[in-house]
Amino acid sequence: MATKKFLLSENDIPESWYNIVADMTNKPLPPLHPGTKEPIKAEDLEAIFPKAIIEQEMSTDRWIGIPEEVRELYKIWRPTPLVRAYGLEKALDTPARIYFKNEGLSPVGSHKLNSALAQAYYNKMEGVTHLTTETGAGQWGTALSFACNLFGLSLEVFMVQVSYNQKPYRRVMMQTWDATVTPSPSLSTYAGRAVKVRGKDGSGSLGIAISEAIERAVGTPGTKYSLGSVLNHVALHQTVIGLEAEKQFMLADDFPDTVIGCFGGGSNFSGISFPFLRHNLTEGKRIRIVASEPASCPKLSRGKFEYDFGDTAGLTPLLPMYTLGHDFRPADIHAGGLRYHGAGSIVSQLRRDGLIEVEDIPQLETFEAGRLFARTEGTIPAPESAHAIASVIREARRAKEEGCARAILFNLSGHGLIDMSAYDQYLEGKMRNYVLSDVEISRTLEGLESLIP
Amino acid sequence: MATKKFLLSENDIPESWYNIVADMTNKPLPPLHPGTKEPIKAEDLEAIFPKAIIEQEMSTDRWIGIPEEVRELYKIWRPTPLVRAYGLEKALDTPARIYFKNEGLSPVGSHKLNSALAQAYYNKMEGVTHLTTETGAGQWGTALSFACNLFGLSLEVFMVQVSYNQKPYRRVMMQTWDATVTPSPSLSTYAGRAVKVRGKDGSGSLGIAISEAIERAVGTPGTKYSLGSVLNHVALHQTVIGLEAEKQFMLADDFPDTVIGCFGGGSNFSGISFPFLRHNLTEGKRIRIVASEPASCPKLSRGKFEYDFGDTAGLTPLLPMYTLGHDFRPADIHAGGLRYHGAGSIVSQLRRDGLIEVEDIPQLETFEAGRLFARTEGTIPAPESAHAIASVIREARRAKEEGCARAILFNLSGHGLIDMSAYDQYLEGKMRNYVLSDVEISRTLEGLESLIP
Repeated sequence: MATKKFLLSENDIPESWYNIVADMTNKPLPPLHPGTKEPIKAEDLEAIFPKAIIEQEMSTDRWIGIPEEVRELYKIWRPTPLVRAYGLEKALDTPARIYFKNEGLSPVGSHKLNSALAQAYYNKMEGVTHLTTETGAGQWGTALSFACNLFGLSLEVFMVQVSYNQKPYRRVMMQTWDATVTPSPSLSTYAGRAVKVRGKDGSGSLGIAISEAIERAVGTPGTKYSLGSVLNHVALHQTVIGLEAEKQFMLADDFPDTVIGCFGGGSNFSGISFPFLRHNLTEGKRIRIVASEPASCPKLSRGKFEYDFGDTAGLTPLLPMYTLGHDFRPADIHAGGLRYHGAGSIVSQLRRDGLIEVEDIPQLETFEAGRLFARTEGTIPAPESAHAIASVIREARRAKEEGCARAILFNLSGHGLIDMSAYDQYLEGKMRNYVLSDVEISRTLEGLESLIP
Repeated sequence: MATKKFLLSENDIPESWYNIVADMTNKPLPPLHPGTKEPIKAEDLEAIFPKAIIEQEMSTDRWIGIPEEVRELYKIWRPTPLVRAYGLEKALDTPARIYFKNEGLSPVGSHKLNSALAQAYYNKMEGVTHLTTETGAGQWGTALSFACNLFGLSLEVFMVQVSYNQKPYRRVMMQTWDATVTPSPSLSTYAGRAVKVRGKDGSGSLGIAISEAIERAVGTPGTKYSLGSVLNHVALHQTVIGLEAEKQFMLADDFPDTVIGCFGGGSNFSGISFPFLRHNLTEGKRIRIVASEPASCPKLSRGKFEYDFGDTAGLTPLLPMYTLGHDFRPADIHAGGLRYHGAGSIVSQLRRDGLIEVEDIPQLETFEAGRLFARTEGTIPAPESAHAIASVIREARRAKEEGCARAILFNLSGHGLIDMSAYDQYLEGKMRNYVLSDVEISRTLEGLESLIP
C-alpha cells in the first residue's frame, strides 16, 4: 500500500507550451472556408476568436511562451503530482510500472483549467467582455466559468441536455462562479430550435451545443466564443501536463514506454502525449501513444478521415478529421466529455500517419476500471478518465501475460465526485453498454458524404 | 490575482503527533463510568476500541510516534499546501495576510482521512475484522470507508438521515469503497427504534447515529467502533495539519496572529490549532485561537460545561463537555458535520480556562463567505469549512477597520463539491438561517441536568 508522488516546485511550471505541429513531417491539412472551400484566413476567424488565439491556432513555432499572468494563475494548483500507482499495480499483480498525472487536483476538478485561464486571458487583453461556450459533462464549462470570473468576463454556457440532467452539481458550480447556464438544444438559437423542431436529439450533443454557442457569440456585440477541445490552440495549452510529467520522470529515474489518454476532442490526450510523442518525431524513440475512446463514439478507431464540420449546424470551418459525421448522435453515456463526433486535425493527421494508436472501450469496463482505481489509489476518477484507466489495465495485463515489465503513463484528467450518480447506477447493476455494431457504423459512414468536391 | 503555495516534501510529513494534554496546566477532567460515576479504566473501553487507541486516548505523552505504515499512506496526498489567499485579501481590501491549509485535496475531500487511516491501522493490527461508525455530512464516513477498504476491514456506516437525503453522492462514495450505509435513525438498533417510536427526530443527529454504531459494535463479534471527532485520540491524529503548517510558516517567513477552525466535535479545529496553541502554553505567546460554530448549534459559545453523554442513547462514558444536552436536536443546516451537541473534553477544558475563543455564525453568512472564497481562490468550500471562512472575513474586516495588519490562518477542512445542492439553495435564495433565541437556549439548558451527583 505504499505510494509515491513525484513533486515539482512552482518554478518548474513550464515557461512555454509545446506546439507539435513544428515537428510533424506531414502537417495537418488546413481548415477550409465552408463557402469557398479555400483554406481559411486568420481574418475569417476574427468574428469568434481573439487575434492571439488565432495566431496560436495557425502557428508552426515549436515553443510558444506562456504569459506571465497565466503562469501565475497556474500556481493556484500546478505543478500537479506525478504518482506511481503502486496500489493499482499490486491489485493487478503486474510487472508494469504505472504512473499517472493527477489533473483532478485543480480547483475545478479537471485539466480543463489549463486552457480556460489562457483563453480568458487573451480575450480580456483584446477587450472582449463576454464569452460563450459549450460543455458536455461540464468540466470545460466549470473551468471557463472560474477563469472568466477571475478576469471579470461574463459567460454563457450551453450545456448538453443529457449532462444538464445527469450532473446538476456542475451547473451549480458554474453558477457559483457567475456563469449563465442554458441547457442545449435550447429555443434561444436558430441551431437549437432547428434540432428541437425536427424532434431529433432531445438529449443534445457537443456538436449542437457548439453551434448554439457560436451563433450566440457571432450575434452579440463585444462577445467571442471559446472552445475547450478539438482545436490546435487548446491542445497547445494542455501540453503543460506532459511537459511537467517529462521533468517528473527524471525525478523517478524512469521513462514511459506507453502513454495513454482518454479521447473526446483531444485536449487531455494531446496534453499528456504530445511532449512525449515529440521524442518519437525528433529522436526516433518508439513510445506507444494510445488514445482511449468510448465504444459508443469511436471516431478515431472506426470513423472516416474526411473534411467535416466541427458542429452540428455547420457554423465552423470545415476541419480535416476522423469523424462519424457532424450529425452523429452518440448514446447517452456518462462520459459526456467524450460524446463528440470528430477528432482535432492534429490528432487526425497523427492517426493517419500511424503515429498514434487507438482503443475503444465499452462503458461497463470503464466503470469497473474506475472503481478499482478508487479502491486502490483513493481518487474516484471522472468517467472520461476511467476510459484511460481501462486501457492502462488492459496494457498492464498484457505486460503480465508477456512477463515483460514496462512503464505506463496516463492522465487522470479529472475526479468523478460530480459523477457519483453514474457510479450509483453502476453499483446498482443498472448501467448498460452501448457498443456500435458494424451495421450501425456502416450506416453512419455511408451517410457521411465528402463536404469538399 | 497572484497566488502562493508553500509546499513541503514528503520527508516533511511529521513523524509524531502532538498531544496537547502534556502541556495543559489544568488537564481535562476524566470521563466517568455512567454506572459507577468513577473515572473509566482502560478495560472499560476495550469493548469498543483497540488497546492502542485507548492508550492514546489516555496518554499524557507530548509526542506520539506515527506508525510508519500510516505515514506512508499519508503520502497519498500529504503534505497539503499552505496557501496565501491573495485573491480573498484583495476582494476584502484588507491589510490582513490570510493563509489557509488545504485539507480538501485528500482523495476523500477532507481532513478526516488523517485519523481514519490511523484508526483502521490500529484496529487491523489487533485483529479486528469489522468496524462501525457514524457520519454526519458524510466526510468521516467516506474517509473511514476508503481507509477500511485499504486495510481489508469491512465497515457499516450509520449516516444521519438529513445528510443521507441532502448528500446522496457521499453515500455512493462510501459504497464505491465497499461500505454498508444505513440511514440513521434506523430500525436495526434499539437506539434507533427508540427514537423512531417516540416519533422524534426523524432527520437524525450525530448523537443518535453514534448510539446506533456503538450498539452494533458491542453486539457483533470481531467488531469495534470508530469515532471521527470529539475524542482525544482523534484530535491527536489531526495535529499533522498544524504541525505541517508550522513548518510552512517558516517558508513564508511569517507566523499566525490568529488561527481559526470550524467546530463540530473538534477534529479539524484541534488539528489546525493545537500545534500553535502549544506556543501560548509553553512560550507565553498570545496567538488568538478561534473556534467557529453554527448559530444553530452553539455549544461552545452558549452551552453549559457539564458531564454529559457523547450520544443520544447514553451508551458512551460521561464526558466533561460544553454541551447543549445529549438529546438536543439541531436544525437541518447543511454543515452536517457541525450538528453535534457537545465539544470534546480537551477543547472544553481549554475553553473553561479562557485559552480559546468562540464565535457562532448564521448559515447564510457562511454560504456568502463560501461563495466569495470560491470566486477568489477557486476551491468551493464544504459548508463546515465555510464557517471558518466567515470568521476569517470578520477578522479581516476588523483588521481593515483598525488599520492594523495581522496574519490569519484557517483550515480549509474540505471542499464542497458534494454539497452543491446546498449552494443551489443559497443561489436560488431558498436558504434560511437558524439562530437559536435566548429563550430556546434557556429552555435547552434548563432541561440539562447534571448527570453526576
